[in-house]
Amino acid sequence: MPRLIDSFASTAALADCFSDAAVLRAMLRFEAALARAQARLGMIPDDAARAIGAVECVEAGDLSRAARDSASLAIPFVAALRKQAGPDFVHWGATSQDLLDTALVLLLRDARSVLARDHARLDRRLRDLSEEHAGTVMLARTLLQPAAPTTFGYKVAGWLGAVDRGWSRVSHRVDEALQLQFGGAAGTLAAYGSRGPELAAELARELELPLPAAPWQSHRDQLAALVAATGVYTGSLAKIARDISLLMQPEIGEVSERGGGSSAMPHKRNPAGSVVALAAATPVPGLVAGFLAAMPQELERAAGGWQAEWPMVASIVQAAGSALAAVADTVESLTADPARMGANLDTTRGAVFAEKAVLLLAPRIGRDEALAAVSEALASGRLRDGLAGRLTREELETLESPEDYLGAAEVFRRRLLEETEGPCP
Amino acid sequence: MPRLIDSFASTAALADCFSDAAVLRAMLRFEAALARAQARLGMIPDDAARAIGAVECVEAGDLSRAARDSASLAIPFVAALRKQAGPDFVHWGATSQDLLDTALVLLLRDARSVLARDHARLDRRLRDLSEEHAGTVMLARTLLQPAAPTTFGYKVAGWLGAVDRGWSRVSHRVDEALQLQFGGAAGTLAAYGSRGPELAAELARELELPLPAAPWQSHRDQLAALVAATGVYTGSLAKIARDISLLMQPEIGEVSERGGGSSAMPHKRNPAGSVVALAAATPVPGLVAGFLAAMPQELERAAGGWQAEWPMVASIVQAAGSALAAVADTVESLTADPARMGANLDTTRGAVFAEKAVLLLAPRIGRDEALAAVSEALASGRLRDGLAGRLTREELETLESPEDYLGAAEVFRRRLLEETEGPCP
Amino acid sequence: MPRLIDSFASTAALADCFSDAAVLRAMLRFEAALARAQARLGMIPDDAARAIGAVECVEAGDLSRAARDSASLAIPFVAALRKQAGPDFVHWGATSQDLLDTALVLLLRDARSVLARDHARLDRRLRDLSEEHAGTVMLARTLLQPAAPTTFGYKVAGWLGAVDRGWSRVSHRVDEALQLQFGGAAGTLAAYGSRGPELAAELARELELPLPAAPWQSHRDQLAALVAATGVYTGSLAKIARDISLLMQPEIGEVSERGGGSSAMPHKRNPAGSVVALAAATPVPGLVAGFLAAMPQELERAAGGWQAEWPMVASIVQAAGSALAAVADTVESLTADPARMGANLDTTRGAVFAEKAVLLLAPRIGRDEALAAVSEALASGRLRDGLAGRLTREELETLESPEDYLGAAEVFRRRLLEETEGPCP
Amino acid sequence: MPRLIDSFASTAALADCFSDAAVLRAMLRFEAALARAQARLGMIPDDAARAIGAVECVEAGDLSRAARDSASLAIPFVAALRKQAGPDFVHWGATSQDLLDTALVLLLRDARSVLARDHARLDRRLRDLSEEHAGTVMLARTLLQPAAPTTFGYKVAGWLGAVDRGWSRVSHRVDEALQLQFGGAAGTLAAYGSRGPELAAELARELELPLPAAPWQSHRDQLAALVAATGVYTGSLAKIARDISLLMQPEIGEVSERGGGSSAMPHKRNPAGSVVALAAATPVPGLVAGFLAAMPQELERAAGGWQAEWPMVASIVQAAGSALAAVADTVESLTADPARMGANLDTTRGAVFAEKAVLLLAPRIGRDEALAAVSEALASGRLRDGLAGRLTREELETLESPEDYLGAAEVFRRRLLEETEGPCP
Repeated sequence: MPRLIDSFASTAALADCFSDAAVLRAMLRFEAALARAQARLGMIPDDAARAIGAVECVEAGDLSRAARDSASLAIPFVAALRKQAGPDFVHWGATSQDLLDTALVLLLRDARSVLARDHARLDRRLRDLSEEHAGTVMLARTLLQPAAPTTFGYKVAGWLGAVDRGWSRVSHRVDEALQLQFGGAAGTLAAYGSRGPELAAELARELELPLPAAPWQSHRDQLAALVAATGVYTGSLAKIARDISLLMQPEIGEVSERGGGSSAMPHKRNPAGSVVALAAATPVPGLVAGFLAAMPQELERAAGGWQAEWPMVASIVQAAGSALAAVADTVESLTADPARMGANLDTTRGAVFAEKAVLLLAPRIGRDEALAAVSEALASGRLRDGLAGRLTREELETLESPEDYLGAAEVFRRRLLEETEGPCP
Repeated sequence: MPRLIDSFASTAALADCFSDAAVLRAMLRFEAALARAQARLGMIPDDAARAIGAVECVEAGDLSRAARDSASLAIPFVAALRKQAGPDFVHWGATSQDLLDTALVLLLRDARSVLARDHARLDRRLRDLSEEHAGTVMLARTLLQPAAPTTFGYKVAGWLGAVDRGWSRVSHRVDEALQLQFGGAAGTLAAYGSRGPELAAELARELELPLPAAPWQSHRDQLAALVAATGVYTGSLAKIARDISLLMQPEIGEVSERGGGSSAMPHKRNPAGSVVALAAATPVPGLVAGFLAAMPQELERAAGGWQAEWPMVASIVQAAGSALAAVADTVESLTADPARMGANLDTTRGAVFAEKAVLLLAPRIGRDEALAAVSEALASGRLRDGLAGRLTREELETLESPEDYLGAAEVFRRRLLEETEGPCP
Repeated sequence: MPRLIDSFASTAALADCFSDAAVLRAMLRFEAALARAQARLGMIPDDAARAIGAVECVEAGDLSRAARDSASLAIPFVAALRKQAGPDFVHWGATSQDLLDTALVLLLRDARSVLARDHARLDRRLRDLSEEHAGTVMLARTLLQPAAPTTFGYKVAGWLGAVDRGWSRVSHRVDEALQLQFGGAAGTLAAYGSRGPELAAELARELELPLPAAPWQSHRDQLAALVAATGVYTGSLAKIARDISLLMQPEIGEVSERGGGSSAMPHKRNPAGSVVALAAATPVPGLVAGFLAAMPQELERAAGGWQAEWPMVASIVQAAGSALAAVADTVESLTADPARMGANLDTTRGAVFAEKAVLLLAPRIGRDEALAAVSEALASGRLRDGLAGRLTREELETLESPEDYLGAAEVFRRRLLEETEGPCP
Repeated sequence: MPRLIDSFASTAALADCFSDAAVLRAMLRFEAALARAQARLGMIPDDAARAIGAVECVEAGDLSRAARDSASLAIPFVAALRKQAGPDFVHWGATSQDLLDTALVLLLRDARSVLARDHARLDRRLRDLSEEHAGTVMLARTLLQPAAPTTFGYKVAGWLGAVDRGWSRVSHRVDEALQLQFGGAAGTLAAYGSRGPELAAELARELELPLPAAPWQSHRDQLAALVAATGVYTGSLAKIARDISLLMQPEIGEVSERGGGSSAMPHKRNPAGSVVALAAATPVPGLVAGFLAAMPQELERAAGGWQAEWPMVASIVQAAGSALAAVADTVESLTADPARMGANLDTTRGAVFAEKAVLLLAPRIGRDEALAAVSEALASGRLRDGLAGRLTREELETLESPEDYLGAAEVFRRRLLEETEGPCP
């Protein structure tokens, strides 16, 4: 469970991914895998590796406080592990950063699975909703003003396109960034003589992690790219939430999420899911900025910038996952009101077909006169009535028919669905 | 204790200030104070107020999860409280935001005390250090290059001036921002008829909080100003840490903090305190940006921006406090090495007195020729030797004496100390 | 004029404040004032000061490119000035940072006047609008859902309170930050022997700038605090724009700014002023973050962080001014539609009085039963009708009268106006 | 030329890419291409297309001011173009966003070429430098403290790896984002009946731009991903600059860029190129945050978020290009000082081989005793001397030989070069 103060900044599943237990498990996993790999290559005694592998749990105790004394959680952790597994071969030849970076990578691998499940759920629901409402006509709105007709199915396909592209970018960046960190004190693995690369490969196999070309101690671009892609994805999630919160205003009333109540007002039905998503997404851009600002890291290991990363990465991933879960839940409970959509269109009294009327008239009487005629018609009431003498009967009959002014909405809708189809993410 | 992943992002004392227990205590405190105030004004029965006041603890349980359903932690909290204290008069006429904003204010009041203690400690130590080294001559460095002499005492006074001004701003913003939130559903306290302001005043007294001119539901400028001032203060703390980490490079070696060891390298003495401070400070600017970006809040209560604030405020205050504690510890353990400072000055072979030499020569031979002479002298070895024929004997004797080229260092040092003196913060 | 690409990021008046001409004028002003002060104190010949003072203009030429070679605009500028005014006594004993920081301060002083005029205009109009609509009843909306009645005059007073507090903070921070920078190479003014402070005081008088306790070369907290206050102020401006853009949605239609048209749709009336304000405000939080991130500046002059400040400060001030001008214009053209406000209230069929009904009923039948009764009433149609048997005739008559459920709206409105009154800013 | 105040925030070439002339050219290019495509499809008369195509220049005049009235630069631009090319068929059926987004894409295409040239230059130089110094031994430094030996060639390869991966990401994101925007008022191209997609394809061909699956009016993820990738790339550039500025400290003195002088101190050689790069890079994270924060754009066209993008995108790309140019120049002029590198290694008196000594001793006497022995040796002087009795003669002879403690430095160096090889970017 996230802390109460972080209720919207994480979810139960993601809070688990970055819990003390998970952190310690990941760190232990690194040390055990290192020892196994070293024993297999004859670098340390089998007994030592077995002793290390047998440790099931290191107490968090006041590791957090002790970490401050050395600016490294690894140091008190390794000390504690040495107490349990013998002093001699724990963390043999490795450095703090090997342990901490690889542990973070392992945490992120688990978090990714949590997000992937919710994304798949969101993708499915948006796809269905778009198909279901392929023909549901509604107002497109620009600058919060009615523009021209569109379909709800196309709108939903736009949401889908953005989040699917976003998730695809996150996935690629995850594949790139989730790799072993193993460089030793100076990034040269000198402690292992010439056998460093062999050991690194063995350790990567143990942890089922890709092996990078070289350690990435103060080169954080791959992690930064993952963090940034997560930020972009979150932005697209928040856009869905913003749209829903706007369309659910009772004065518009075109969609409705299950929503939540109010502590003061029994009548209220708040767009709670959208609000949680927007709340979760709000800190993300600044956190991404924080990560990027930490990138110019000093020489072979930074004095501050590297040590700043953990809480930022954990916050960004949890926030993204919280926004995702909220949007997925919201969209699953979302209902559209085609009648209200139609009524809102009709309320404009044809004004949203003004562009169409101008385009019909302009080739005949010039654009300036066409504009004047349309403006006059709008001022006097329904557009259709005001243009009675100027358009043909057929034109007048379909002038205000939204179904006749959808252009390529359905073409674009289908393209968006097709573009993002394929093997489940 | 902070979570392990947040080891540098908070301290034990500050993690307590924003713990679930603290949050629930603050929320309970609001509801109990409200009930007491209402009972005193005859708005609810005394019994009801007593029942509410008697509740010592509400279980966190899955409040965090339930909060997501209504986009408000207040709703499940009030529901839980009603179960314990009776359904009828809990939260009478109040709204979620009254409870949540005021609870945050109470949390921040406690956090402020924690920070104030560490700031006082830092202020004292910097003041002593500056006095102690009023005459300790060292290099000023600009763009990471030796510039001209200064004193360590003056450098420390500069640090002091910045953090004291910064803390003073934080304090003023705290005084402004830590006030009651009490507006009811629409910010009008309509539930209490014409007695809203009277009740608000009574409630403010109960909670020992200032009463604002009006509720501040979607006007977050006072909180934003506090958050921003905290960001500025943190920036000045980080500047101290950066300076120490640079001066502690062994190649410079002019100051030394107690520091911490390495997991791989037994010889290392890392600037651990400075690193923790820099790590803590790194995310703060982005978090401040997140808060500012959330300010354009919709109408009478935001759909997302408000709900995003809690984790950001908590993160900023904890990060500031973590940086502060680390800098205070670091400065307390800081030692200066006047001999090394002098040696580093001397190593420049007089180059850092080149400006002085030019200013001496220019009125006699013109600036262009003076520059040429000085450059030639520098190229050939010690400045003094190269200018032997051009300056008087007296001038040559003191040319490379740093004590004779300190200008107003001591004047400025004293002014900085005086400016920030006064009643302890 | 701003560049086209920056159309919404500045205004004509503010683009002038940071133009090349203005920058060069400010730099020239510093050098001339320095020379005058030095001549008066007998430090340089009167002739030299006159020659420097006589230079009316330094050509921008490729100063911008040349600045990159030395990471300082001051160096090519001073070189150019020496060509015009003689090589010997230009910039005598000063350093790049003295010139550049003080020039920035002079630019900001002019920019402040531009902002002050627009703020005064905004303040006046909001004040009038609030008075005019003290009794105009409308819906308060929370989470974009109708909450309970309020008045438009109170809403406007809330806007006023926030921007007036914001401007007051900016003003205080300006008073603090706009001060002379004069420290010489190392911040000691050593070039002037013991006469540095005397010269600094004379120079401050010449430029009509306050004299700080000491140079602030790598202590940027005062400038940071100004930048941050400007960010907070901009957030409050953007909140007004957001509210207007929402209330101007035709489905709500309660206020209307003059607005702008569309390139495609002749019927549209876009909330153009609000949109420009929101567009201008959007980058500001990130720019503030950039400034804060640059604060940990190395030793006596930073290697990057200081040199990064100019474009950030200029962008923030121009963006704030652009948002301010847009909001001031928008509010000046703003009209409210009390009839529509009333109609929107009525459309809720009494639902926004549900809280009121519950509070009336609860003391009689308990809160749970009251809630059930109100919910049932709401489900069946108008609230009043559904509660016919449960409330007294008097209660029923006023139940849905918004004027009877405004609580302290007018009290709070007046307090906000009074709190911010006083000598014009 | 950039404005003086933006001297480090852009370059002459990039300032041209976003100048008024370039913006107007790009806008004109869109309108001319649209008209040509429409004429070819028989949608507008050939004459009209020719008249539009014949316009060579639209005056900037006060377009910038006029843009504020409609929150769109497109509207006054199209009006001006209509004056020159006839009122009837300019911008036929298109919307402001089609014009503005596509114009931005065209500007970015040109900017990309500018960046590509500098990146190629940087790539080449880093590659050469790495090869040249494959065997140049120096200290690796972690947390600004000496750690263990590495090679300068490996360090440079690390820089290369990061910027090449970064540029590759930027390139992919550019390929994705630089596509036609063409959706008409509502994103449906309804003005063209069923022929919208056909016209879009023709227009894309005219402009040599890819055609997206659908218009991306309020889905900004592709542009956001480009902006974010540019931010990551800039972070890696700044890391190089930070390293150089640190290694060029005279107390370390291992590398030297050409550098720049000082206005006060004739002796100084500042790391000017690195400083410019760091200054340029500093605002970028915040600007990326601003762009991400603008992503939750309302419905079919945002009220503020979209209109905020231009100056942010232009600032980010120019800042990246300025940092890139500065780093490329700096690295081209960079010289390394192998003698000084060796001397700095030697100054540690073997301390940086302490880890090696522990690893040699630990299997014989246990890690705890090994640590004690090494610490004692370090305390007494040279490591080698202190361990005389404990290591074999062979071990002692090579103990402090950095060439014997480089581990996989050369392996990693070659892998980094190979990984990034291939067709020039």
